[in-house]
Amino acid sequence: MAFTPLTDRLIEALQVLPGVGTRSAQRMALQLLERDRDGAAMLQAALSDALSGVQQCRACRALSETELCSLCADDTRDHSLVCVVESPEEREAVELSGGYKGDYFILQGCLSPIDGIGPDELGIPALLHRLESGSVRELVLALGARVEAKATSHYLIEQIKNTPVQLTQLAQGVSSGDALKRLDSGTLAQAMADRKVMTFEQD
Amino acid sequence: MAFTPLTDRLIEALQVLPGVGTRSAQRMALQLLERDRDGAAMLQAALSDALSGVQQCRACRALSETELCSLCADDTRDHSLVCVVESPEEREAVELSGGYKGDYFILQGCLSPIDGIGPDELGIPALLHRLESGSVRELVLALGARVEAKATSHYLIEQIKNTPVQLTQLAQGVSSGDALKRLDSGTLAQAMADRKVMTFEQD
Repeated sequence: MAFTPLTDRLIEALQVLPGVGTRSAQRMALQLLERDRDGAAMLQAALSDALSGVQQCRACRALSETELCSLCADDTRDHSLVCVVESPEEREAVELSGGYKGDYFILQGCLSPIDGIGPDELGIPALLHRLESGSVRELVLALGARVEAKATSHYLIEQIKNTPVQLTQLAQGVSSGDALKRLDSGTLAQAMADRKVMTFEQD
Repeated sequence: MAFTPLTDRLIEALQVLPGVGTRSAQRMALQLLERDRDGAAMLQAALSDALSGVQQCRACRALSETELCSLCADDTRDHSLVCVVESPEEREAVELSGGYKGDYFILQGCLSPIDGIGPDELGIPALLHRLESGSVRELVLALGARVEAKATSHYLIEQIKNTPVQLTQLAQGVSSGDALKRLDSGTLAQAMADRKVMTFEQD
């Protein structure tokens, strides 16, 4: 099927969207250019404004329109307590559980060498830097039970276990294979309240 | 789930894409803003350039980067013969069949009052205007056998049957329910070669 060069470029670009292949991208491009130009202009403006106005919070990597997100800027919270989660959905789940008033650090993913996702992509150097500054008393690992999440937890434990920061993890109650973000608030609140100090055999 | 206002606006705007609901739009927005800013910038630029550079061909309504598309501007084609198709895919199918050297008129849809698609949305006034100018000798209806396509054909026949333009339709060979764009080129070429003059009972 022959499209114009600019249409071809749009079809190509639409495939950066997750779950969109060539056929869907063609359908989307034709819909936008032939039948919904107003919608297309709205999408273009929203994308442009979001790209310039939304960045990662300097402290926790959540999407934010200010340098510090509202949670990190909130001085009623305990900034010496940091909970490491995989994504904003998990942060939301912990917030809704109501039992936690510390900071968060959002990895935005898990270690996955095969996809080129290493410690840098997850912002781990910045987290370690913050821990070294001495302002953090306790780090709660809340990464769930998937294989990649466990590998990421183990990596973090290796990096942190010889620092003075106390490492804790959510109490058992999260059963193997459960996605944290789909857990009910009560269970999650209990697991947070029961979080355990992690101990290590000395090397 | 709490996002920033600009992120919410992007999530809303992404739902103009066909087949994209709230959940997919959230996933897309987070992918673009958290993990693929380069892709997002590429998409934004491609969308912006396509919106300003791609319009409908003045004559046939195909997407074009010039006022007349390359087919309509091609003076080796017979501009007194016009084939009405539903979409660019059907035009492509007729072109590939190799047996046709006239112009096209692309409705970009079918009449569908329930979706607010009437004659104006399909550019039918412009088509009738061109027929009234006397430059068109024959109009080939190639709209397929779906209910909406048949209704659209009937509407066009009613509008045109009392003008001097000869109305033809593709020869039978297109069996009921076949999508024109999935027909093999040989059958389509034959149907085009055998197209029949349409006759009407006088009112």
